[in-house]
Amino acid sequence: MADVDVAVVGAGLAGLMAARALSASGASVRVLEARDRVGGRVLNGTTSDGTVVELGGQWIGPGQDRIEALAAELGLETFPTYNEGDNVVSYAGRLRRYRGAIPKLPPHVLAGVGAAQLLLDRMAPKVPLEAPWEAAKARDWDGQTLETWIRRHVWPEGARHMLRLGVSSVFAAEAADLSLLHFLFYSHSGGLLDSLFNVAGGAQERRFVGGSQRLALAMADALGSCVVLGSPVLSITQGRDELKVVSRRESLSARAAVVTVPPALSQRIEFDPPLPADRAQLVQRMPMGSVIKVMAVYDSPFWRHEGLTGQSTSDTGPVRITFDNSPPGPGPGVMLGFVEGQDARALAGAPEQEVGRQALGCFARCFGPRAASPAEVIVQDWSKEHWSGGCYGAFLAPGVLTSFGPALRRPCGRIHWAGTEAATRWCGYMDGALRSGEEVARRVAQALS
Amino acid sequence: MADVDVAVVGAGLAGLMAARALSASGASVRVLEARDRVGGRVLNGTTSDGTVVELGGQWIGPGQDRIEALAAELGLETFPTYNEGDNVVSYAGRLRRYRGAIPKLPPHVLAGVGAAQLLLDRMAPKVPLEAPWEAAKARDWDGQTLETWIRRHVWPEGARHMLRLGVSSVFAAEAADLSLLHFLFYSHSGGLLDSLFNVAGGAQERRFVGGSQRLALAMADALGSCVVLGSPVLSITQGRDELKVVSRRESLSARAAVVTVPPALSQRIEFDPPLPADRAQLVQRMPMGSVIKVMAVYDSPFWRHEGLTGQSTSDTGPVRITFDNSPPGPGPGVMLGFVEGQDARALAGAPEQEVGRQALGCFARCFGPRAASPAEVIVQDWSKEHWSGGCYGAFLAPGVLTSFGPALRRPCGRIHWAGTEAATRWCGYMDGALRSGEEVARRVAQALS
Repeated sequence: MADVDVAVVGAGLAGLMAARALSASGASVRVLEARDRVGGRVLNGTTSDGTVVELGGQWIGPGQDRIEALAAELGLETFPTYNEGDNVVSYAGRLRRYRGAIPKLPPHVLAGVGAAQLLLDRMAPKVPLEAPWEAAKARDWDGQTLETWIRRHVWPEGARHMLRLGVSSVFAAEAADLSLLHFLFYSHSGGLLDSLFNVAGGAQERRFVGGSQRLALAMADALGSCVVLGSPVLSITQGRDELKVVSRRESLSARAAVVTVPPALSQRIEFDPPLPADRAQLVQRMPMGSVIKVMAVYDSPFWRHEGLTGQSTSDTGPVRITFDNSPPGPGPGVMLGFVEGQDARALAGAPEQEVGRQALGCFARCFGPRAASPAEVIVQDWSKEHWSGGCYGAFLAPGVLTSFGPALRRPCGRIHWAGTEAATRWCGYMDGALRSGEEVARRVAQALS
Repeated sequence: MADVDVAVVGAGLAGLMAARALSASGASVRVLEARDRVGGRVLNGTTSDGTVVELGGQWIGPGQDRIEALAAELGLETFPTYNEGDNVVSYAGRLRRYRGAIPKLPPHVLAGVGAAQLLLDRMAPKVPLEAPWEAAKARDWDGQTLETWIRRHVWPEGARHMLRLGVSSVFAAEAADLSLLHFLFYSHSGGLLDSLFNVAGGAQERRFVGGSQRLALAMADALGSCVVLGSPVLSITQGRDELKVVSRRESLSARAAVVTVPPALSQRIEFDPPLPADRAQLVQRMPMGSVIKVMAVYDSPFWRHEGLTGQSTSDTGPVRITFDNSPPGPGPGVMLGFVEGQDARALAGAPEQEVGRQALGCFARCFGPRAASPAEVIVQDWSKEHWSGGCYGAFLAPGVLTSFGPALRRPCGRIHWAGTEAATRWCGYMDGALRSGEEVARRVAQALS
């Protein structure tokens, strides 16, 4: 008899949710996690005065029902991302304030962005979420990069620039890296572009009191001792009736396994027999994005007193997007800057201090000299995280979805796949990770019954 | 004191050449190979009557001086790929014979192919082999797929089709998968398109008597007991003065390591400390091509008696390209068919027998009913080879070279990188593997002195 019904690999949101749902259905589970913590790409940090700041995934927004329901179940509260006052845009050397989601840019630039968004939002719903490769134009869209589409359909250059900035803020990758088909799928999966880009009414609308990692911590708490930390899975061997899962700390037999680690990292696990060729080649083709989160901590969110939201957009890197990431209630001010895609790659080899210095320069450009002198700077480069391989998620280059898409969720014998990359709705988001975990639990429970 | 000066990971052509050159320079080496054989992607098979057939890389051609010199050193002989008589093209349901490198196609199709080749051959030399990302148009060319370029510059559709076929025969990947910049680099690296495509005067000109793996076997022989088989490297730990290399069979300390495995597969090795972010993310972005070699063995090469070379090109898969792969001298006839790119992916899950059956159908279409009844069929699907991950080599999707290119050959401390993917000349070929091995040996010897 097997030690457990299901071995879950990875204690991120998908793995914990899968374990939670399987436990609830009466299955015995064991969760094997490589790191000495749960949460995966969702992680709380603390400033020196004990304020919690989110170092990984952090926001939720309308349409993310699964995460909302889980938060309610776990008794976690959310609060709105600070969004009162004016935003700031730094463009072509000029700094301007504006209100709402549309930056103050030259009208022909705004018109160009609007027209492109309209076109893309008409194409995205034509990509079936369960099978993007079945879109009528799948071959055409998967044969080109999003950059190619932008160059062909977007004018003037300023509009292209803004669009690329939006893309890199969503994918932590460049328009040149992405299959147009994958981009459209992803946009459809997350409720189209306004939903992906916006704070009010969009995917950046709210945050978790106490930080988003509390979701993972609370799920792990409820699961208790079946979550094993510091124990990367080394191999999974499939026998006729069960699996043997070997991790650094323990070996166990299981009737099924759910692997939730980022697809690229699943290559570190030795599968015996080896996985089918399409799965093996798919995971060679799912690279992770490149992002550095920089947070500067101040005595107070001084920009608020000047009528600013803390949100800024800039055409100059390395930080091109900022948010007010202060804790709820009175207390310190936290300015959050994103270094994404090419900017993150260019700084991947730089010392943290240098990344912080450059980020402060960007903060000061948008919010004045006070921004240059924080009490503390926190730098989190996800490309350096050995057990994530990058953030926010995996993206697909041209040709991958149409050639290898069906291998993404198809189980290999007793091995099932989950994780936000396997989600059909909110792919790439915390909500997608939870949906994927719940969905795989349903399928595994069925397979075992 | 370290056990050896240099630990070489992988006993393919690059690893063996690196070990050979380092040994010659007086360094002590140990070669750790995962498989129970040497040669990597170069492998001899035998038919049931003992005839040697090449299951992996097999041809050499003009300009491949390094492999030619090594063959001479090792006393290996080459012979011309059989190329006497007419070739066959199956196009739009018609079968035609022709002589030479240019198939008998409608003139406007031939003109379209010729014009495209001229354009591409003018662009390729503008890509610097040592630093493709420094090409004047690097961003533009790396922002699009080769497929995008074909759609924009090639007419009529038939010419696009022939070009895509040529591309997939070189990369075992589709034009939609490839960065235009990477394609141009690769073409430049191998002496432009005629060189890559052709038999006479091209990279398919000659074969090795006794099969190409003899190169690897002879080098391994000369190295003797320092080549350890069946011993995949599990981890490499860098200390201040030396490395600790742990493989399945043995652990050793070394002053330097040369890792020659396909970049994607290097993710299976645990590096401590982890590799820099740019290297870690690069190897997530170097997928391997998809190819199945099918060989049918007949009593004699019956097509020769009909004045045919055995070479065919077809617009219908799964086999779209064939060659006469008979051993030199009198003896059985071997027909070699390639299933490449999308065709190989579509058949990745099929049983060998089914792949063979479909290939024989293609052989019969081009060479008549006799081709349908061979004495034996040999199927080699490289996507299923756990220690290759695919063949012929890695390719780069858009955005990778310009973002991560410099990480390809830059050493990480005492760890150096080699393999045909790291070659600047004949990248992707056996010759490139040898050049890369020799070059890394030079650099390591320098670093150790």
